[in-house]
Amino acid sequence: MAASAMLKSRVRRPSYLKKLVAHDDIPSLIEHFPHGAYVGWSGFTGVGYPKKIPTMLADHVEANNLQGKLKYNLFVGASSGAETENRWARNNMIERRSPHQVGKEIAKGINNGNIKFFDKHLSMFPVDLMYGFYTKHKANNRLDVAVVEASAITEDGGIICGASVGASPEIIQMADKIIIEVNTAMPSFEGLHDITMTDLPPRRKPYLIMAPEDRIGTPHIPIDPDRVVAIIESDYPDQTQPNAPEDDTSRAIAGNLIEFLKHEVKHGRLPENLLPIQSGIGNIANAVVGGLAGGHANFKHLKVWTEVLQDSFLDLFDSGNLDFATATSIRFSPDGFQRFYKNWEQYAPKLLLRPQQVSNSPEIIRRLGVIGMNTPVEVDIYAHANSTCVMGSRMLNGLGGSADFLRSSKYSIMHTPSTRPSKTDPHGISCIVPMCTHVDQTEHDLDVIVTEIGLADVRGLSPRERAREIIKHCAHPEYRPILQDYFEKAEFECLRKGWGHEPHLLWNAFDMHKHLNEHGTMKVPSWG
Amino acid sequence: MAASAMLKSRVRRPSYLKKLVAHDDIPSLIEHFPHGAYVGWSGFTGVGYPKKIPTMLADHVEANNLQGKLKYNLFVGASSGAETENRWARNNMIERRSPHQVGKEIAKGINNGNIKFFDKHLSMFPVDLMYGFYTKHKANNRLDVAVVEASAITEDGGIICGASVGASPEIIQMADKIIIEVNTAMPSFEGLHDITMTDLPPRRKPYLIMAPEDRIGTPHIPIDPDRVVAIIESDYPDQTQPNAPEDDTSRAIAGNLIEFLKHEVKHGRLPENLLPIQSGIGNIANAVVGGLAGGHANFKHLKVWTEVLQDSFLDLFDSGNLDFATATSIRFSPDGFQRFYKNWEQYAPKLLLRPQQVSNSPEIIRRLGVIGMNTPVEVDIYAHANSTCVMGSRMLNGLGGSADFLRSSKYSIMHTPSTRPSKTDPHGISCIVPMCTHVDQTEHDLDVIVTEIGLADVRGLSPRERAREIIKHCAHPEYRPILQDYFEKAEFECLRKGWGHEPHLLWNAFDMHKHLNEHGTMKVPSWG
Repeated sequence: MAASAMLKSRVRRPSYLKKLVAHDDIPSLIEHFPHGAYVGWSGFTGVGYPKKIPTMLADHVEANNLQGKLKYNLFVGASSGAETENRWARNNMIERRSPHQVGKEIAKGINNGNIKFFDKHLSMFPVDLMYGFYTKHKANNRLDVAVVEASAITEDGGIICGASVGASPEIIQMADKIIIEVNTAMPSFEGLHDITMTDLPPRRKPYLIMAPEDRIGTPHIPIDPDRVVAIIESDYPDQTQPNAPEDDTSRAIAGNLIEFLKHEVKHGRLPENLLPIQSGIGNIANAVVGGLAGGHANFKHLKVWTEVLQDSFLDLFDSGNLDFATATSIRFSPDGFQRFYKNWEQYAPKLLLRPQQVSNSPEIIRRLGVIGMNTPVEVDIYAHANSTCVMGSRMLNGLGGSADFLRSSKYSIMHTPSTRPSKTDPHGISCIVPMCTHVDQTEHDLDVIVTEIGLADVRGLSPRERAREIIKHCAHPEYRPILQDYFEKAEFECLRKGWGHEPHLLWNAFDMHKHLNEHGTMKVPSWG
Repeated sequence: MAASAMLKSRVRRPSYLKKLVAHDDIPSLIEHFPHGAYVGWSGFTGVGYPKKIPTMLADHVEANNLQGKLKYNLFVGASSGAETENRWARNNMIERRSPHQVGKEIAKGINNGNIKFFDKHLSMFPVDLMYGFYTKHKANNRLDVAVVEASAITEDGGIICGASVGASPEIIQMADKIIIEVNTAMPSFEGLHDITMTDLPPRRKPYLIMAPEDRIGTPHIPIDPDRVVAIIESDYPDQTQPNAPEDDTSRAIAGNLIEFLKHEVKHGRLPENLLPIQSGIGNIANAVVGGLAGGHANFKHLKVWTEVLQDSFLDLFDSGNLDFATATSIRFSPDGFQRFYKNWEQYAPKLLLRPQQVSNSPEIIRRLGVIGMNTPVEVDIYAHANSTCVMGSRMLNGLGGSADFLRSSKYSIMHTPSTRPSKTDPHGISCIVPMCTHVDQTEHDLDVIVTEIGLADVRGLSPRERAREIIKHCAHPEYRPILQDYFEKAEFECLRKGWGHEPHLLWNAFDMHKHLNEHGTMKVPSWG
C-alpha cells in the first residue's frame, strides 16, 4: 500500500514500508495470534502501548462471541492503555498477565479468578523473561509475538520508542515475530532514550552510570529486521488521565517530608542539593514534588532518578530547581503532554528515558543513594508495608517498582494518609495497623514513615522502639490509643514468654481488619 | 614493652610496636569504653572477632558487679565469638546490637527486652553505618571505638584481616579510635583478601567484578595510623564448632535440588558448569555442597559466590569440581581450619575474602546470576518466607544475607525440611504454613521451594497456582490435606467476594500456630 507522507518521514528504513499493513487489512494479522499465544506489548504506566492490534483482536472477539475462548498470556512492562487492556479483561481474553496493571476491569478479572496474574519487581521482570522463566512450558522458551509502538524507525530498522521504554528491549529480544505500530499522532521522541539490551550471565556487565544524566546505550532499540512481520500506522495518542490533585492531607505529608530532608542536610547526612529523588504517581507524590518546586523548600540543582514522571515534574523544571530527570516513562496528562511538546527544546536536554531494568536497577539506585518515596496500602507498627493486596487477598495494581526503590534507596520512605474513609466512617480505615495483612516491604527495608500527622524516623531502632515512634508520630489520634493498647498488651505477653523481640498478639493481629469487615470501621473497642 | 618475635614478624610497621599494650596492662584500656559507648568489632559468623578486649571488659563487669550498668551499643558485621558475645549478653552489657547474632544468651537478652536488636541486610548494614544512620544521636555521627582483629599489619599500618572481612572496613572508617588485636595463634592470612572501602554518593562507583575471581581492591584495610590507640597480641584461635552433620532429610532435599539444576541445564537455562553458587550454613547446605562434590551430580568447573564457606567446600575443592570460591568469611570447624592450613598452597589461590558489602552486593549477585539457597523458619503456600521470628515475635539469629541473595539471585531457592518436631509430635511443626507469621522474603522474590518431599517451581505462576504446587510437592503428607483444605476454603470464600487474587481466611490464617501453642502440634482438626 502507499504510505502517508507522515509515516514515510518516520520510517527511515524503506524495506519496512513493504511490510506496511493498511488499516483495513489489520484483521489479516490475526493469524499471528492463536489461542494461548504468548504476547508481549510495549508500554509502561499507560503510555507507549500498542493501540491497533489490541483493538482489532478485541473487535474480533466481540464480533464472534469468543469471550473466554481466545485467551492470551500477556506481558507488558507495566500498565497499558485502559481502553485496550480493560477491554481485553472485560472480554476475558487474558489467561495470564504480569507484572503490573491498572484498571477496574483487569483488577476484577484478577480477583474473580479469570486472569492468572503475578506481580514482580519491575527491574526483575525483563530479566526473568530473558531467562525463559515465564515461557518455560514452551519448547523454544520464547514469546510468540511482540506488538510494539514506535515513534520512529531508524535506517537500520531500530525502534525509537515513544513516551515509555519499559520492557520493550527484552520483549523484542524474546519474540519470534514483531509487529510495529508507528504512532504518527504524536511527535517523534528521537533522542530522548538511552537503550541498553540484556545480556545473560556470565556475560553481564556493570551499568556504568554514575549520575542521572549518564548515557550508556543507543537512542533506539536494535532489532533483527527479519523478525518484523508487519508495520502499522497508529493514529491516536496515549489515552492518559488528568493527575490526582493535591489536597490538605497530601500537602501536610509533603511538608513533614521536606522538613525531614532539611534536617538531614543540616546534620551533614545529605548534600545541599540532596541526592537523586524517586517519586511515584498520585497526589502525595504530586504534593512532594510540588513542595520541592515551591519557595519554602529552597533546594537547588536537584536531580531525579525515578520510574515515571508526572506533570508536577514539569513544574519542578519550570521552577529552575531541577537540573536533570530520568525515568522509564513520562506519563503526563493530555495537557501535560501538550505543554511538553510545546516546550520540547527546553525540556528534552534535561530528560532521558531508559529501560525499566535500568531505571529500577537496584545496582544504580544503591550507587546513586536515591531518596525513594512510595505510598502503601498499609504500614504496620514495626515498619512492614503492604503495597499490593487489600485484606491480604484483593489485588490492586501490583508491586510495581516499590520494592526496587525501597530496598535499595539510601532513604526508604513510605508516605500515606494516616486514615482512609470507609463507607460509614470518614476515618474508618487506619493505614497504620498492628500487622500488615500482606507484606511487600519488610522492616529491614524502611527508614522513614510519614503521614499528615508526623514523621517516624526508624533508622537504627529495634522493633519495640519503632512501634512507639510510629504510633506516636504517624497514627491518627482516633487510632493512637487503640494501637498503643495492642502494642502494650503484646509487649507484656511476649516479654513474659521470652518472645519479646517483635511483640504480637498473633491471634488478634488482624482484629482491626475483622472489625472493619464486620462493622465498617477499624475502631475495635478492645483487644481479645 | 618488648614484642614477641612472632608479633614482630606480623607487625611490619615498627611505630605501631610503641603502642603495644602488654597482656597485664589491657585493663588500662577500659578508659576508651565508657558506659553507652558506640563500639564496633571485627568478625563475621564467629571468626575474625576480637578476643582480648571483650574478655577484659566482661571480667571488669563481673569483678565489680556492673551487670546492666556498663552497657554498649555494639556493631559487628555478623555474629561474633560465642565466648565473648554471649558473655556480654549474660552480663547485660549490650544496650543495642545489629545486624546479626548467634548464641543462646544473646537471643535470650534480645527476647527478654534487655538488648535493643535490629537485623538488617548484611550488604546494607555497613553502608547505613557509613551514612551515620546508626549514630544519628551522636553529635559527630561516628563510632567511639573499633576493636579489630588482624592477622598481620603492613608497612603502612594497614590491617590484614583473618578468616573474615565482614564490616571491618566501614567500622574502621567510622571509628574515632581503633584498637588492633594481632592474633598470633593463627597463621597470617595475607593475600587472601580483596578490600574495597566505602565511598558515599554522589561519589560511589560500580563494582567492576564480572566473575568470582576478579580482584578490585587491596590486600589490606588502609587505616589512619593516628587513630590507632593500642595494639594487643591475641593468643587463641577462633572458637568455632563442628558442622552440623548431614542426615537423610537433608540428603533428600539436596537430591531434589540437584535434579532441578540438571533439569535447568537440560533446558538451556543454565550453562553446564551452572552459575556461581551461594550456600548458607547448616546441614542442608552441607548436603547440597556435598551432593555437588559427589559423583552423581557431575557438575564440573563450578564457582562459588557466597557469604560464608564451611567445611564442605573443602570437599568440593578436593573433588576437583570447584574452580574458585569467594565469600566474606571462612567459618571452618577446628578440624577444617587445620586441614586448610595444612594445604594452604592448594586452597589459597582459589579463594578470596571480600567485605560483606561486596560478597552480599545485590549489584554483583544479580550481574553474576547467582544460584541462591537458604533455609527459612517457615514458608507459606504463596511463597513468602519467614527467616527470623518464630511465632512472628521470637528472634532467632536475624536476617543475615538471606534477602540480599534471595532478592537478587537468578535462582532464589528456599530449602527446608517439610516438618520439624515439637515436644510431643515428631512432625508437630509444619514448615509449610497458610501464612507466615513474619515475612522476610516476599512472594516476589522466591523461585523454588524444596523439601525432602519434593520441589515446587513457582516461577511465572499466579498465587493460586503456586499454592497448589507448594502443597502438592513440598508439604508433608500429614499436613497436605490440612493445607489443601485451608486453601480451598479460602479460595471459595475470596473468589465469591471478588478478593480472590491471593485467597486467605484472614481470621484463621494462624490457626495452625495457635494449635501448636495450645496442643503441641500444628495438626488442626478443622478450619474455623
